[in-house]
Amino acid sequence: MAAALCRGGKVRRPRAGRFLPLPGARHDEREGTTVDPATGLMRRALAAALLGPEVDPNPRVGCVLTDAFGQVVGVGHHRGAGTPHAEVDALRQAGEAARGGAAYVTLEPCDHTGRTGPCSLALIEAGITQVRYAVADPGARAGGGAARLAAAGIEAAPGPLATDAEAINRTWLFAARTGRPFVTWKSASTLDGKVAARDGSSRWITGAAARAQAHALRARCGAVVVGTGTALADDPELTVRGPDGQPTPAQPLRVVVGTRDLPEAARVRDDAAPTLLLSTHDPAAALAAIGERGIHHVLLEGGPTLAAAFVAAGLVDEFVAYLAPALLGAGPAVLADLGITTITDALRFEITDAAIVGGDVRVTARPQRRR
Amino acid sequence: MAAALCRGGKVRRPRAGRFLPLPGARHDEREGTTVDPATGLMRRALAAALLGPEVDPNPRVGCVLTDAFGQVVGVGHHRGAGTPHAEVDALRQAGEAARGGAAYVTLEPCDHTGRTGPCSLALIEAGITQVRYAVADPGARAGGGAARLAAAGIEAAPGPLATDAEAINRTWLFAARTGRPFVTWKSASTLDGKVAARDGSSRWITGAAARAQAHALRARCGAVVVGTGTALADDPELTVRGPDGQPTPAQPLRVVVGTRDLPEAARVRDDAAPTLLLSTHDPAAALAAIGERGIHHVLLEGGPTLAAAFVAAGLVDEFVAYLAPALLGAGPAVLADLGITTITDALRFEITDAAIVGGDVRVTARPQRRR
Repeated sequence: MAAALCRGGKVRRPRAGRFLPLPGARHDEREGTTVDPATGLMRRALAAALLGPEVDPNPRVGCVLTDAFGQVVGVGHHRGAGTPHAEVDALRQAGEAARGGAAYVTLEPCDHTGRTGPCSLALIEAGITQVRYAVADPGARAGGGAARLAAAGIEAAPGPLATDAEAINRTWLFAARTGRPFVTWKSASTLDGKVAARDGSSRWITGAAARAQAHALRARCGAVVVGTGTALADDPELTVRGPDGQPTPAQPLRVVVGTRDLPEAARVRDDAAPTLLLSTHDPAAALAAIGERGIHHVLLEGGPTLAAAFVAAGLVDEFVAYLAPALLGAGPAVLADLGITTITDALRFEITDAAIVGGDVRVTARPQRRR
Repeated sequence: MAAALCRGGKVRRPRAGRFLPLPGARHDEREGTTVDPATGLMRRALAAALLGPEVDPNPRVGCVLTDAFGQVVGVGHHRGAGTPHAEVDALRQAGEAARGGAAYVTLEPCDHTGRTGPCSLALIEAGITQVRYAVADPGARAGGGAARLAAAGIEAAPGPLATDAEAINRTWLFAARTGRPFVTWKSASTLDGKVAARDGSSRWITGAAARAQAHALRARCGAVVVGTGTALADDPELTVRGPDGQPTPAQPLRVVVGTRDLPEAARVRDDAAPTLLLSTHDPAAALAAIGERGIHHVLLEGGPTLAAAFVAAGLVDEFVAYLAPALLGAGPAVLADLGITTITDALRFEITDAAIVGGDVRVTARPQRRR
């Protein structure tokens, strides 16, 4: 910690470098230690990345460019599908000033031509001589930018701050590495584990704040998945609605899994959002079909039966449980039978977060890692 | 907020009174406002009260005595059943110095002779001329001290800090006002609301930290209640065990409610703690029998059936739910049928606290107040 200085009765923090005149080094408040310039610049790139939207299918990426003397000449970030990648955004700011300079990117520059050209090529053409990328792109399609940079004689190396860069794109990186979408199971139940009363009524178990958060979670995902049971019983619209109650412009894919027929008038079949009907009971097959559509993050909102199928198949990567302080005693449980008969076979998760949301509790958990 | 002052490079907070030289007043950091001396002295009495044990059947009480000039000459607290009350504890410190002075007590002085004499009389005999008590004693048996003080010509008035004084003895005051013990229902379930697997196995659903907290909660209560179902299925000992695993010297009353017979060898019938077998299914009758034994705080640890009986009867005043991040799918639910069929009849609580305890989540809730 830096000592507080006093001047004219005001408490001031020292400026970076004042007490640490090491060339190129500065004091990092977050890490409480002296860090090399690359770490400081990458942290700035991470901050830029967070300005972008957290919406599937695009990762959040930030880029800081320096000139040949190490001065920052461009800070860019990705603003979502169809817009320039962070590197191009920063290069547009920097112009010729970046020639001979360095790039700090939170994700390995892409090497493929999609809706925009490969960033590796853009960096080469701009005359960048050094590239640091916090985390490698594990994707077979877009990865490989570092190799092309190296082949062009540019020093390209991974890190620093890989852990932070992982955290801001965990679902995207998970999908890139495993080849299937990351699955978040969201439930809303009473404290005694019921998702509806005996007559099937469930509006509303949780309060407005929890429901608004659930909509925000939907908005970040590429697909929302329910079973035919839920689609038939509740006839949900499964759209993302804004504060005005109207569907927002961008909508995740609505997916209904199961072999029962849905009536033509079912709300999920309306024009408010695209819909995919998957006539299967196999969660892995459903995820494969969803992943083929370029989706990295799936929100499982199904009823007890579909949830049990995903849980039993080990295909729930995160569990977000909204618990209302209400008791029902009877009614459908949040999770159907998993085939577990004794306590030692219970599926164990670990809690990553617990918070009060409005009048409800939200518990976030992930499958326990094997010891 | 007071402005930070600088001297010799150190940041200092102003001393109380430096900027507020009103006679007899001082700046209260907690309330952020100027308070009268009575509030400051009562806060000191409250702090003293908290030094005492929070164990049924005794309230936590603190007392501050001043001399005739307002200087503190004694600070006392109650240390549990059979020990002097806070007033007597403070009077012993003060001796003759308290004559002509004032007493600040967190609970109205008692007026009855139990294991110790009435505090009202002790204050009168000590020559106290003014008494403030934060909260009145609502009990028919011990209350009335203020009236005796007034009859002796002593100025006796309620407050200040009644809310704080309520909070430290909420179960004791509840019992004194309503004539029945305060009921805390404690559950331990999976996130999907199961208290055991299908084969009945439940050791352990929650982790060591949650179980240790549950023992600490037992230790504060006057009685631990289960149904015959739990007693027969789990054969629990229902004792308070210390960190060494051995029963602690003071034990709450073990109560088994229900009409089924318990075998002579049942653990709850051993000599580790007193036991009460109540052959009834009526929660109100059970509470009356427990309350007759001078108990103010009951911990309901029963299974789903007994919990449902208490919940349905409106006889759960606090719900402490330990939720393990585990999923079972099948097995007994935390709560049996309440006869509720539709969502609008759900019993609503309000959350007062949520916390991560070890690897589990603890949610504390109380019945929603009628609007």
